Amino acid sequence: MSRQHKGLLFTWNRGSLKEILTDHGLASLGDSYVNFVYSLALSNRKREPEGTKVKGSILAEALRRAGLREQLPSRMSRHALADAAEALIVYAWLNDRLTLNECVRELGKTDDPVDGFTCVLVAAKERITFP
Amino acid sequence: MSRQHKGLLFTWNRGSLKEILTDHGLASLGDSYVNFVYSLALSNRKREPEGTKVKGSILAEALRRAGLREQLPSRMSRHALADAAEALIVYAWLNDRLTLNECVRELGKTDDPVDGFTCVLVAAKERITFP
Repeated sequence: MSRQHKGLLFTWNRGSLKEILTDHGLASLGDSYVNFVYSLALSNRKREPEGTKVKGSILAEALRRAGLREQLPSRMSRHALADAAEALIVYAWLNDRLTLNECVRELGKTDDPVDGFTCVLVAAKERITFP
Repeated sequence: MSRQHKGLLFTWNRGSLKEILTDHGLASLGDSYVNFVYSLALSNRKREPEGTKVKGSILAEALRRAGLREQLPSRMSRHALADAAEALIVYAWLNDRLTLNECVRELGKTDDPVDGFTCVLVAAKERITFP
């Protein structure tokens, strides 16, 4: 699904990984995306539609396990680490590096959401490129 | 984007409009979808990524304006009416009747989220078919 197919008009290109991880706007948009994809994965698991919110502690731990913690300043709250994860995940979707379906599939491979989001974050990190 | 492309494994088919509007699971999944599509529309409007949550009062009023209120019992809370709107919108997406892009575009046509969600709900109602 290209940018046009998504109907998106805003500019989300960022120049570095750190810039993405510390972007509050991306984090805020990413929060709603992460909750939606995880709700879809949960619905698949339960075989019926269901919605949920992903806890910040899960995303913060997944960010660490994905080896992204070192990209950020040493003193950061768990909330800020979760924001960083949300920003990166939605950035990868916006840039067509990780589709919604791929996210749902990765999250559905495991019972443990930390494992699932770690895989999603590793894939996002590996696929995002900068000019 | 077909069911397969969405990677979805659960069954969401329902037999009537009323059944959709009163489905708690669909409403719960729809809550995360509605917040995501509206966040995308808002991001387009502001020309930068931003996330938001849609107030229940907005969805309840849009449901009324879309002529869907009469499908539901007379005594229902505003919360339950918002749930009904969320259920219908995500059901239309799940069944490929209304794409994410179409939702974002409809919501982006107006400053007033009640107007935007009314259009989305009318389109969903018109396009959903039952066996």
